[in-house]
Amino acid sequence: MNSARLPVTRWPAGETGTADSTDNLAIEEPMEIRVSGRSVAVTMRTPGHDRELAAGFLLTEGLIRQVSDVLDILMCRDLPEGQTGNVVDALLAPDVAVDFARLTRHVFSSSSCGLCGKATIDAVAHNFLPAASGPQFTPAFLATLPGRLRAAQPGFAATGGLHASALFNSAGELLCLREDVGRHNALDKVLGWALLESRLPLRDTVLLVSGRVSFELVQKTLAAGLPLIAGIGAPSTLAVECARRGNLTLVGFLRAERFNVYCGAERVRGA
Amino acid sequence: MNSARLPVTRWPAGETGTADSTDNLAIEEPMEIRVSGRSVAVTMRTPGHDRELAAGFLLTEGLIRQVSDVLDILMCRDLPEGQTGNVVDALLAPDVAVDFARLTRHVFSSSSCGLCGKATIDAVAHNFLPAASGPQFTPAFLATLPGRLRAAQPGFAATGGLHASALFNSAGELLCLREDVGRHNALDKVLGWALLESRLPLRDTVLLVSGRVSFELVQKTLAAGLPLIAGIGAPSTLAVECARRGNLTLVGFLRAERFNVYCGAERVRGA
Repeated sequence: MNSARLPVTRWPAGETGTADSTDNLAIEEPMEIRVSGRSVAVTMRTPGHDRELAAGFLLTEGLIRQVSDVLDILMCRDLPEGQTGNVVDALLAPDVAVDFARLTRHVFSSSSCGLCGKATIDAVAHNFLPAASGPQFTPAFLATLPGRLRAAQPGFAATGGLHASALFNSAGELLCLREDVGRHNALDKVLGWALLESRLPLRDTVLLVSGRVSFELVQKTLAAGLPLIAGIGAPSTLAVECARRGNLTLVGFLRAERFNVYCGAERVRGA
Repeated sequence: MNSARLPVTRWPAGETGTADSTDNLAIEEPMEIRVSGRSVAVTMRTPGHDRELAAGFLLTEGLIRQVSDVLDILMCRDLPEGQTGNVVDALLAPDVAVDFARLTRHVFSSSSCGLCGKATIDAVAHNFLPAASGPQFTPAFLATLPGRLRAAQPGFAATGGLHASALFNSAGELLCLREDVGRHNALDKVLGWALLESRLPLRDTVLLVSGRVSFELVQKTLAAGLPLIAGIGAPSTLAVECARRGNLTLVGFLRAERFNVYCGAERVRGA
C-alpha cells in the first residue's frame, strides 16, 4: 500500500452533479534512519521497503560498502504515537567506522520535522498563516493559470528539465516566475523575490508550481502567507494534511478543463 | 541563461544520417549560502536570481521574517576557481538571532560536495566504478524498457504522484522496481535491495528512473557500480559531467521510438 484515499472536490462536478468525491494519493511520511541507535537522518518517503531504503541510503552516502557491513536492520518498537513504523535502526558490523560528519545531506532534523504537527507549522509560518476565510478565486480563473505558466516558461521549453514556480495576483497577472532544476529552489526564488520586494504576506496571491506538491513545498508556502497553492501534478498525503492544518487551499492536477481541490475548497467559489 | 548546449548522440540518427548533435540541458550547479560569512547550506540549483534564492531559503527555513532582517545579500568574490558566482553571503540585521541548529535540511556539506570533482566521485564510488569498456546494450533493447517500467508501476497509475526506479538485467528481465514520492528514495530502495541481496556491483544491469536525471541520482548510481543510467526525462548539465567523470553511460528522454545518449555512447551499439 503506497497510496491512500482522501476526500476531494472535483471541478467540474461529475455526471451526477456531485463535486465531492475521493482520490488516491501517494503516501508521504517521514522516516528516521538510525545507525546503532543514533539518529542520522529523517527522509520524507512513501512507506514500504524501509529496510532497503535504509540500506541504500547508507550505501549511497558512503557509510557501508557491502552486505557484510550490516548486521541487521530493525524497525524500532515502543515508539511514541505517530512514529510507529517510521523509525529504522541499522546495526553495523564492529569494524565499520562511521563518519557521522558526512551525513549532512538531505537530512531533516528529527526535532523540527515531526509528523507535520503544529510545532512544524508554527516554526515556518511566523505570523503569516492565511485567514480562515477569503480570498476567493473562481474555477474559471484557476483554469487559466496553466496556460499562462506555460507561455512564460522558456527554460522548460528549451530543456524539458526545469521546474517552475509562479505567483499570480487575483487579476491573473503574473507577478514573478522562476525556473530551477530543484522544485524547492524555484519556490524559494519566488518567495525570496516577494520578501525583497516587501510584498509579504502574499494575501491575495496564488502560487502555481509546475510539478507535484510535496510536504516541503506546502511548508515553504505557509512561510509566505499565501492562501492557495496549485500544482500541475499530484499532491502527497502529507502535503494535504499540512495544508489543511495551515488553513491553506491545495489544488492538484490543475488543467484548463479540470482540477481537484484537496482542502480549503471554500476559497474556490463563484462563476 | 539557465541552459547550456552539450554534445549528444541521438537514436535513431537524424535525416542526414548523423547521430551526433547537441542538446539544450538545464544547468545544475552547487550554490553555497552563507550567513554573515558562516556557511549554512549548499543547494544544487540552476544559476540565476541567486540573491532571491538565498533570501527565500532563509525565509522558508524560518531564519528571517521580513526584508528589514536582511542588510544585504552579496555574491562573494576572490574565490577559488570553480566557485566564482556560486557563493552568496547574507548579512543580517544585528537584532536577528540565528538558530544555526535548525539548518539541517537539504544541506550539502560544503567539504564533500564541490563541483562534482574527483573527490566526490571517490567518496561514493568505492571500488565499484564501471569498467572503461562494456557491457554493451542495443538501442532496440533500451527502447523496450519504458514499456516494461510502465507495466510494472501500479502506484503511479493509481496516484500520478510516485517516482520509480527499476533494475533490468541484460536479458530485459525486471530485477527490482520501487516507487516513492522521493526520486532519491526510490533509487535508494532498489540499490538497498541489491546490497541486501549481495548483488553489488551491478555490472551487467541497467537502471531506469521514471523522471529526470539529476547530479544526485548519478552520484548514487555510481555507488552501485552500474554501467548505465537511463531516464524517461531530461538530465542536467552536472548529471552529465558527473556521469562522464565516473565512466557511466547516461541516456535521457528514453522512449520506445527514440532517446538521447549524453555520454558513454560506446556502450550503446549493435542491432
